Amino acid sequence: MRYVSFFKDGKKYLGIREGEVIRVLGQTTLEDLLSRGVNLDAYGRDEASGETVSAAGITYLPPLSRPPKIICVGLNYADHTKESPYDQPDYPTLFFRVHTSLVAHGQPLVRPAVDDCAGLDFEGEVAVVLGKGGRHIRKEDALSHVAGYSLFNDGSVREYQFKAPQWTVGKNFDGTGAFGPDLVTADELPPGARGLLLQTKLNGQVVQSASTDDMIFDVETLIAIISQAITLEAGDVIVSGTPAGIGWAREPKLLMKQGDVCEVIVEKIGTLSNTIVDEVK
Amino acid sequence: MRYVSFFKDGKKYLGIREGEVIRVLGQTTLEDLLSRGVNLDAYGRDEASGETVSAAGITYLPPLSRPPKIICVGLNYADHTKESPYDQPDYPTLFFRVHTSLVAHGQPLVRPAVDDCAGLDFEGEVAVVLGKGGRHIRKEDALSHVAGYSLFNDGSVREYQFKAPQWTVGKNFDGTGAFGPDLVTADELPPGARGLLLQTKLNGQVVQSASTDDMIFDVETLIAIISQAITLEAGDVIVSGTPAGIGWAREPKLLMKQGDVCEVIVEKIGTLSNTIVDEVK
Repeated sequence: MRYVSFFKDGKKYLGIREGEVIRVLGQTTLEDLLSRGVNLDAYGRDEASGETVSAAGITYLPPLSRPPKIICVGLNYADHTKESPYDQPDYPTLFFRVHTSLVAHGQPLVRPAVDDCAGLDFEGEVAVVLGKGGRHIRKEDALSHVAGYSLFNDGSVREYQFKAPQWTVGKNFDGTGAFGPDLVTADELPPGARGLLLQTKLNGQVVQSASTDDMIFDVETLIAIISQAITLEAGDVIVSGTPAGIGWAREPKLLMKQGDVCEVIVEKIGTLSNTIVDEVK
Repeated sequence: MRYVSFFKDGKKYLGIREGEVIRVLGQTTLEDLLSRGVNLDAYGRDEASGETVSAAGITYLPPLSRPPKIICVGLNYADHTKESPYDQPDYPTLFFRVHTSLVAHGQPLVRPAVDDCAGLDFEGEVAVVLGKGGRHIRKEDALSHVAGYSLFNDGSVREYQFKAPQWTVGKNFDGTGAFGPDLVTADELPPGARGLLLQTKLNGQVVQSASTDDMIFDVETLIAIISQAITLEAGDVIVSGTPAGIGWAREPKLLMKQGDVCEVIVEKIGTLSNTIVDEVK
């Protein structure tokens, strides 16, 4: 089942994608459903209305606009670590995003109006949305905590990422984290979203291409390790890392500017597409 | 005015400290009031009930249990940076905490049950709570965005802080971030909480002592710089950094274990006291 969050008449709606149309579920959100422990398969089956809207005409929202946590994983593909200034750590490299940095599929990805930003960098990633929280989750149980998967473009302002020892600011400018379009329930995908081709395209050219099998810490390992420290909650999002090919590591650098179109494509999950727009202060 | 969040009969209450008693305001939260743009001075004056409870008998909650963001500042006192492995950056070093890491005044600070944690480290800090959000806030306007100040003990699991290039996990174990006891409205303190003596005591011994004047990036500068990147929201908390004296930098190391009592004391703001308890899995 493919859940879609969208705006209609100024209100937030949830629906289910059925080919070219979205079947309307009503004015609710995935964060509300997941926090109440709702089973998404049953809900989508039981609550679907007769009303549909054309998928081509909707204004998307991120699958969740305000997840309890957005936990991002850095350095989770060996070939990406090799193009970075870091040695490969033997423990996940985690950082948080905040909700103010999120944008939806089809919305502008924002290159901020700060003097020292040559452009926004792309990072195509698989996002994991938890349906059930917990602490000290065992690796063998971890995938039962996943509600579904989506896509993420972890837009990065590299100049700010490296101004201080923590990446936080460079990863959290408003409107730099694209998330969506669909939340694809876990039953539609291989366990842990393994073995899927992940590609990022910039203006139609492939700039990143890898298999999700190449993650150093796979989805179940991430859930198990993170939950040794942090109570995970239903609705939490784990953004699972990007493979090689980022623009900052290229010679010359390849950074996104006004009018560029960036797509993150993962087979069986979908395509997340955004146009880059310069911030107007 | 000194706001106190607390539990009573299993419910969350907000009150105002008046000497030895807390005057009850009702079942509301600071995050709700601040998100609705309520002026805390007027609210406390107009909504105070005749009911009081003894301050000695209450179970504290953090002033805000679920702030929209908890933005922590590292390396913000030069003498602390000198005891760290880092050079002093000329830009704020930011990291996020998540709400699952918070504990209240009087509640246990948790040393996690992980093999390689010799003990929890202390970091006494001033917490800034925003009453009004914004983006691109000018430094000269920044202090008008502050609702008040509180105290924070940024309990750190150093072994995990340094397992990977980002500090996230070592700063976010459940129950390691003590916050409270009171939110002291800004009008009761010097502008920007400047010139206040900040001390941390471990089992009664002073282990950190500095003036808040020693912050490299003061409160207004932090608000201005952070808001160049990130939309700040009413209820956001900025944890403004710790001075020298942390246990990890001592020889031998001084880390907190079961039964230790740690206090963060800042003049005019109060005392945040917590007993360290080992996690029982």
